[in-house]
Amino acid sequence: MTKLSAQSIIGSRKAVGTGEFFYAVNPVNGQRLEPGFSPATPTDVDAAVQLASDAFSVYGRASGAERGAFLRKIAEKIESIGDELIERAHLEAALPQRRLQGERARTCGQLRMFAQVAEEGSWVCARIDQAQPDRKPAPSPDIRSMLRPLGPVVVFGASNFPLAFSVAGGDTASAFAAGNPVVVKAHPAHPGTSELVGSAIQASIAECGLPEGVFSLLFDSGTQVGVALVKHPMVKAVGFTGSRQAGRALMDLAAGRPEPIPFFGEMSSTNPTFILPGALRERGEAIAAGLHTSFTLGAGQFCTKPGMVFLPQAGEAGGFTKKLHELVNLMQRSLVPPHFWCATPVGKSCSRLLVASKAISLRPYTVQNKTYANSRRSCSDLIAIIENKVGRLVFNGFPTGVEVTHAMVHGGPYPATSDGRSTSVGSQAIFRFARPVCYQGFPDEALPSELRDANPLGIWRMIDGEMTRAANLPVPARKAG
Amino acid sequence: MTKLSAQSIIGSRKAVGTGEFFYAVNPVNGQRLEPGFSPATPTDVDAAVQLASDAFSVYGRASGAERGAFLRKIAEKIESIGDELIERAHLEAALPQRRLQGERARTCGQLRMFAQVAEEGSWVCARIDQAQPDRKPAPSPDIRSMLRPLGPVVVFGASNFPLAFSVAGGDTASAFAAGNPVVVKAHPAHPGTSELVGSAIQASIAECGLPEGVFSLLFDSGTQVGVALVKHPMVKAVGFTGSRQAGRALMDLAAGRPEPIPFFGEMSSTNPTFILPGALRERGEAIAAGLHTSFTLGAGQFCTKPGMVFLPQAGEAGGFTKKLHELVNLMQRSLVPPHFWCATPVGKSCSRLLVASKAISLRPYTVQNKTYANSRRSCSDLIAIIENKVGRLVFNGFPTGVEVTHAMVHGGPYPATSDGRSTSVGSQAIFRFARPVCYQGFPDEALPSELRDANPLGIWRMIDGEMTRAANLPVPARKAG
Repeated sequence: MTKLSAQSIIGSRKAVGTGEFFYAVNPVNGQRLEPGFSPATPTDVDAAVQLASDAFSVYGRASGAERGAFLRKIAEKIESIGDELIERAHLEAALPQRRLQGERARTCGQLRMFAQVAEEGSWVCARIDQAQPDRKPAPSPDIRSMLRPLGPVVVFGASNFPLAFSVAGGDTASAFAAGNPVVVKAHPAHPGTSELVGSAIQASIAECGLPEGVFSLLFDSGTQVGVALVKHPMVKAVGFTGSRQAGRALMDLAAGRPEPIPFFGEMSSTNPTFILPGALRERGEAIAAGLHTSFTLGAGQFCTKPGMVFLPQAGEAGGFTKKLHELVNLMQRSLVPPHFWCATPVGKSCSRLLVASKAISLRPYTVQNKTYANSRRSCSDLIAIIENKVGRLVFNGFPTGVEVTHAMVHGGPYPATSDGRSTSVGSQAIFRFARPVCYQGFPDEALPSELRDANPLGIWRMIDGEMTRAANLPVPARKAG
Repeated sequence: MTKLSAQSIIGSRKAVGTGEFFYAVNPVNGQRLEPGFSPATPTDVDAAVQLASDAFSVYGRASGAERGAFLRKIAEKIESIGDELIERAHLEAALPQRRLQGERARTCGQLRMFAQVAEEGSWVCARIDQAQPDRKPAPSPDIRSMLRPLGPVVVFGASNFPLAFSVAGGDTASAFAAGNPVVVKAHPAHPGTSELVGSAIQASIAECGLPEGVFSLLFDSGTQVGVALVKHPMVKAVGFTGSRQAGRALMDLAAGRPEPIPFFGEMSSTNPTFILPGALRERGEAIAAGLHTSFTLGAGQFCTKPGMVFLPQAGEAGGFTKKLHELVNLMQRSLVPPHFWCATPVGKSCSRLLVASKAISLRPYTVQNKTYANSRRSCSDLIAIIENKVGRLVFNGFPTGVEVTHAMVHGGPYPATSDGRSTSVGSQAIFRFARPVCYQGFPDEALPSELRDANPLGIWRMIDGEMTRAANLPVPARKAG
């Protein structure tokens, strides 16, 4: 059993304690869990960010292969902690061990997916516009661009996913994959779990020979450390998963800085579900059971929990409402079931269940309700309306269970996400922590590998508007400039 | 000669005047130019945005071919205005007619480039992850994603580019290409030019059979209309080109809304230029002449004007300083020349001129100066340092003259750009006005064309992580979900 130091991790060292402590609490019995953790001091915050900034000059230029090896090493180290990690997370979060094992698998799967993305390399969106020395009225120069990392990224661990959206979760993995050092603010509900994972990252950095500042982990039971991190002038972006209230407060801080920085907050969402008439008639009971499973999953704490259900007008609901009442009454614990709206349905013959995930919280429902109630429009009209208000649409399924894939979008218009142009789940999450840089008239040897004539990494590139992974340029590169 | 109505354009109609007027002023003689323009009222603002919101449900679903035809029509209509446009712009901006002809060519070229991007269609970044019905422990569903437009976009016309960054400039063209309606706030310095171009867009909408609300043009000599537009709840994004002071004020407004929206502001930049020792020795006079041309171009009003020059220590500057003094002394008008820094150079043997465009304004120069002064580091080290602070690096060239291509980046870290992850020039500008939406378990016929199995548009797509433009899927699509 690892002895927890209960101290923040500042690069390769542990922070010195302040003498004040906070404790994780076992949600099952309310008892506090040893050891007491020391909150990070303002000096610790500054040291962690300064180290991250120093590390960026090296890690930001590490190859995709090096970043990939680092991410794979972290996954391996997390797995090698074994049952201890699951047991501590179980004590701190009271989530079932099987769920935590699944979450660990997902966490390591995410790390390996981003390793693969970094290793493959095409994510940088390399573009080359060749020089046109004979263009009239003036020659055009050779111009090349690619995505480059931003710099130190701050990640806030989430309360409801002690592993998958925490210290080595999707935000950290995607920021690392893009080439950014990360400073994590651990969630105070699971500091022990956070330290175990943080130590695995710290060890991975040492084994991979990376600069120590690539990762730090800071503890705090309040808001002081988080606020100081978001306001720190060397921090270049923030990833956050949590409540709308906390998210908006931090988002405003990020936007109000002398140098505003991108803030990516995954916040609240009510995920409206539309049960169309045919589906209700044909399989009302099965939908009730599926819906019940979905909104009680994870004790109802998932941000994709179906929070509103739109039904055809009363009388048509068949076995659905009866079944759902039975299931809700059987529940041992008090959970908030979804709100139900009954309305004249669209698409009478449509036997589909339609879920809008990561929807805007309030305003659209008026629109939805009106549409659903007052029109005889088709199901495709309903899709057209919902599409403009959400990040993800699900046909004949429930919103919980978010696959970590290339096409997944787990963002949506504010306030589901602070920036609806982003996703925190899936490989597209990497784009949050990168920006395009262009190189004009550069000699080949001064260019990053991704942009060199010979395409040594074999990545997909857009050359003069055409996608190719060819190992050369269509015409010999001639630099005008 | 077209008679200017001097009224705002609200969809297909002209706004009713308020009785108050403002006038453009001829910068050459200070005389006011007829006619007097009516500022838009709060009712006009609301009507324009409401129309844009209504139009979005149609235009947001128009095909790439339809959007392309619309953009090409606008270019054609602008060209067909003929000399009248150049003459009015010359009166309002006092820019040479030849420069304005070039700017018109650039404006129409931009519109046609975005037409091509919309017609080709691959810009939507379509991704398909096929279902895995046999996956353990649970099957995975079919997930597909693509970029979709945001909704009504507000564009602020710039003072220094009456055509290319104004009513039908890059912001408008890229927002249209992505499927967003646009409401332009005309710059008060060139209202006549703005009306001529706005009328060309209005006529293009009618000829293309698009909803009238796809475009409106509002006049105002103050800040009232701009503020009302940025705060309007139906507006979903803003494009701005102008001063840092105005840009930051609007940026803060956008971030402070109940629903914050993306704000893309192109603001100030000082574009440091590093002249390395070899270059200075070998071609000091030629560099002085090129630099002089660059910082006086457009009366020194380009945001890519070289504002700081780093030189080797005094004594090594050869003919450079003498030549530059001569040229500056010959100038008829008072222009602000760049600031010069003399320092011990890096890379003694390096005969390159390095320009960092769209750089951060103040802080980095301390760093740059220190590095340039105190180290014997190589040119590649200098690039590595500058790269983290800019959007564009130029070798052996000057920063003015920004090509409109696929690889161009005309953004940079704040305050050069409000969001350094974006560019306002080049085809990548389209990404500012779109967001990913994902479709899970959808039947083929309910999907947008871009995501259908058969790839009817023939676009590039990422299928299970691999780029392809194949007209089918690797394995027959099986929907689990």
